[in-house]
Amino acid sequence: MDLIEDLKWRYAVKKYSDKTVDQAKIDRILEATNLSASSAGMQPYRLFLVQDQEMKNKLGEGSFNGQIAEAPYLLVFAAYTSMGQQFVDNYIAHVAAEREIPVSALADFKASLEGYILNRSDSENFSWATKQAYIALGTALIAAAEQRVDATPMEGFDSEKFDELLGLRKKGLKSVVILSFGYRHESDAFAGLKKVRAHQEEMVTLV
Amino acid sequence: MDLIEDLKWRYAVKKYSDKTVDQAKIDRILEATNLSASSAGMQPYRLFLVQDQEMKNKLGEGSFNGQIAEAPYLLVFAAYTSMGQQFVDNYIAHVAAEREIPVSALADFKASLEGYILNRSDSENFSWATKQAYIALGTALIAAAEQRVDATPMEGFDSEKFDELLGLRKKGLKSVVILSFGYRHESDAFAGLKKVRAHQEEMVTLV
Repeated sequence: MDLIEDLKWRYAVKKYSDKTVDQAKIDRILEATNLSASSAGMQPYRLFLVQDQEMKNKLGEGSFNGQIAEAPYLLVFAAYTSMGQQFVDNYIAHVAAEREIPVSALADFKASLEGYILNRSDSENFSWATKQAYIALGTALIAAAEQRVDATPMEGFDSEKFDELLGLRKKGLKSVVILSFGYRHESDAFAGLKKVRAHQEEMVTLV
Repeated sequence: MDLIEDLKWRYAVKKYSDKTVDQAKIDRILEATNLSASSAGMQPYRLFLVQDQEMKNKLGEGSFNGQIAEAPYLLVFAAYTSMGQQFVDNYIAHVAAEREIPVSALADFKASLEGYILNRSDSENFSWATKQAYIALGTALIAAAEQRVDATPMEGFDSEKFDELLGLRKKGLKSVVILSFGYRHESDAFAGLKKVRAHQEEMVTLV
């Protein structure tokens, strides 16, 4: 893999073929996404991989994004809408179990997480959780490109409808961004467009 | 490069050595970051690479993040706080120039961008711009890991102070997240800790 080449290769596919994606590639994309960095490693979001055609049809109904129903896979990033003591306790218990240390050895870490999480409003925590999900989105895009799997990140979708259809509310989650996976249709005119980015000297200021 | 291995290799370094990073590696990280996906390719953020020690000292003064002053490089991600007609016009002009087509050929694209940007409040656009910057943060973390350059993403910093010292306000920008680059100090105890992530079946629900 060459990261620069992978990033140049990818684009937001508008039209998908019906070619399926090897499960091993999907698994690898999901594994990479789950390895994404997040603030204090807390991963305050969950992923929903939708492959069921009927569900994709419902999710995509009335949307200008035909990719939702058309692409073989749809990955929904959903952030926690409320985080409190239980969220911190669960995370600390998980870290302790994974590192095979007592919870008491993480007292300082726990206190610092409580200092962040419990002093913010639900709205602030949801905004923070959403940003963490976007780091994971960045990882997922690169993981797909590395596998030469096409993808389309989409923000313009009806999150209320997604939350309803996927039963996210009862899990304390809200959909924040979605990503289609599959293979570009040979007629997708967007494939041939030159990728446009800011000139490096415009993007980066040296201090 | 193997993306999964790179993601497993990285961690948020707490203590840096004074070893410098080859310019070619920094250039590559910046190039990758600038190639990041963003909504409609608009890249509503800018990057500031701080290498000046005096500036790093000022930025890090009083912070619990010693990495700000200690690491050889500090990358500041700053999002635009207000986006209007001029922002859209500039972007469309840039795309037209890069693709060597007349601006008029992008009329539909321009109208759709105006539909998004001009109908949102500054606060909504800033929140959107911040999320795009986080996609770029995800890319930068992977680009650094690919080069075996250590990095530390940080949200806990005084953005008002950063905006002031780096003169961001007059550019219409606000710092949203920062990232140190360098090499881990051999005494950094965090290097040896097991990376903890949610179990895959907890993170991903199949639908």
